[in-house]
Amino acid sequence: MYGPGDVRVEDVPEPSILAPTDAVIRIVRACICGSDLWPYRGVDTPDWPAAMGHEYVGIVEEVGADVGNVKPGEFVIGSFFASDNTCEICRSGYQSSCVHRQGVTGAQAEYLRVPLADGTLVATPGIPDDDLVPHILAASDVLGTGWFGALAAHAGPGKTVAVVGDGAVGLLGILSAKQLGAERIIAMSRHESRQQLAREYGATDIVEERGDDGVERIKELTDGLGAHSVIEAVGTQESMMQAIRATRAGGHVGYVGVAHGVELPGQELFFSHTHLHGGPAPVRGYLPELIDLIWNRKIDPGKVFDLELSLDEAAEGYRAMDDRRAIKVLLRP
Amino acid sequence: MYGPGDVRVEDVPEPSILAPTDAVIRIVRACICGSDLWPYRGVDTPDWPAAMGHEYVGIVEEVGADVGNVKPGEFVIGSFFASDNTCEICRSGYQSSCVHRQGVTGAQAEYLRVPLADGTLVATPGIPDDDLVPHILAASDVLGTGWFGALAAHAGPGKTVAVVGDGAVGLLGILSAKQLGAERIIAMSRHESRQQLAREYGATDIVEERGDDGVERIKELTDGLGAHSVIEAVGTQESMMQAIRATRAGGHVGYVGVAHGVELPGQELFFSHTHLHGGPAPVRGYLPELIDLIWNRKIDPGKVFDLELSLDEAAEGYRAMDDRRAIKVLLRP
Repeated sequence: MYGPGDVRVEDVPEPSILAPTDAVIRIVRACICGSDLWPYRGVDTPDWPAAMGHEYVGIVEEVGADVGNVKPGEFVIGSFFASDNTCEICRSGYQSSCVHRQGVTGAQAEYLRVPLADGTLVATPGIPDDDLVPHILAASDVLGTGWFGALAAHAGPGKTVAVVGDGAVGLLGILSAKQLGAERIIAMSRHESRQQLAREYGATDIVEERGDDGVERIKELTDGLGAHSVIEAVGTQESMMQAIRATRAGGHVGYVGVAHGVELPGQELFFSHTHLHGGPAPVRGYLPELIDLIWNRKIDPGKVFDLELSLDEAAEGYRAMDDRRAIKVLLRP
Repeated sequence: MYGPGDVRVEDVPEPSILAPTDAVIRIVRACICGSDLWPYRGVDTPDWPAAMGHEYVGIVEEVGADVGNVKPGEFVIGSFFASDNTCEICRSGYQSSCVHRQGVTGAQAEYLRVPLADGTLVATPGIPDDDLVPHILAASDVLGTGWFGALAAHAGPGKTVAVVGDGAVGLLGILSAKQLGAERIIAMSRHESRQQLAREYGATDIVEERGDDGVERIKELTDGLGAHSVIEAVGTQESMMQAIRATRAGGHVGYVGVAHGVELPGQELFFSHTHLHGGPAPVRGYLPELIDLIWNRKIDPGKVFDLELSLDEAAEGYRAMDDRRAIKVLLRP
């Protein structure tokens, strides 16, 4: 990406092993993330040009001398932060805040260097069937992020869960809440096709109103109290306040939309009595469980990919997501 | 209080039963709260004049027709919010967000009307010995609030707990963390006498630095990671940021200082990976357990009262707390 709205597919040097803990993988599938739209829309301003993409599945090509957990030829998945998976923070379940954390980017490509490969990549039980690949790819970020949102919101049996945001993360937050046993799941969405997938994934109610009107509707559906659990999957001031206000006293907000320009009013938060937890999802910790669920065809997170393009057509993929014509775009190198 | 800095002790009509769920109690001891200093300092501007005081122990004088849990002659304690203790929010442990919540104020007096007496007041096992009374009084707010802060911060075995604020709530947050089994407790304090009480209550380390320097010291004491649990007991922008920044990724901030002018930066909070929970403490829920601990002389929270005055001298009590000459002032009607 050379600047806002300017996506180009170019030949660049192939990545190589730089550290003995690196792996280089051949990308089988990558995709475009909702968070890739922040720079595309000029809200984030990285150093241009920026190599894009942080969601990936692929085949290990080469590993550094210190890599022992994955080997060439294996089908692997990783996520947007590389982690050692051994430090105290990783062991406590927060791999995305690993003390040796490194960002992974440039996955919208044919090859990718993954640092800290032993703590970052997870091999699948074998080479997956083609139709399984999108589902596994979804675990790289959007499913893992929705899963973290649902866990952070304490979704579970007996709970009413509301989900703010009907992008891929919000939709997979619904799938996650359902999988975790939530009793009732309220999707906040005003898009017909997304409402339909929300229902497929387990939403029991749809609320089309936004902002304070949306909050009012959630309260009407919950005896005036608000939801036990709210997953915030957007990251704006409006969506955060909507999430906090839709949560009952003592309830939990799990916020996984990357916060942009958000300022939380301390006094309102204080009297809301909510629990707030979120941040970049520690996807690495969830991968074994999520791969298992996908491999055994118990969940189908890949349905969020409603447009598949070749890598050469990446620019059209960004346009389709920016226009909300596509929920999520899969890229095929 | 007639305005900032203007405290007067006057004869007013005695309170009476207004609703069948009310009780009127004769105050045995009351006290001045750190939060009473917000209007005293002109930061809060209630309707003047404001009847002050929301911490109290006393003897039930009279009860309304619907009150069955307490009766005249019993020694009782309540807290700053009246609650029905039966609604869904109360039953989930958030009595201070009860759907029928009412503020209790005017406890710095000889008599007090307490609404929703059945759900608000708790009788002690008998009339307490004089020396126990300050300890029981402390449970009315500052102990219950420190307790909530410690619970919200997930203080417990194996945990390093840092406490921001060395007022009565912070000090009793230390006592609470100790009681809950915390392994290490770091008190942030630069006042000699408060440091001493902090150590008595269980602090293992003292950090005198504040702000980012204080955060740096906490990190040095915790392998660079930050504390597992941080209790915030002040309520300012600086103290909240100090608390959040002193907490490790995946750790818990329990914030119980009433937030004043606080705006939390969403993006920093997002990447901090902390859990945030707090608000007005649901003291009612803790009273049975806290009374039991005090009655059996297992904890001595009343040590935070380092100045005892007669009710007539209330104005001097406010001055002493405002000047930080006293940690907490007990008032004797």
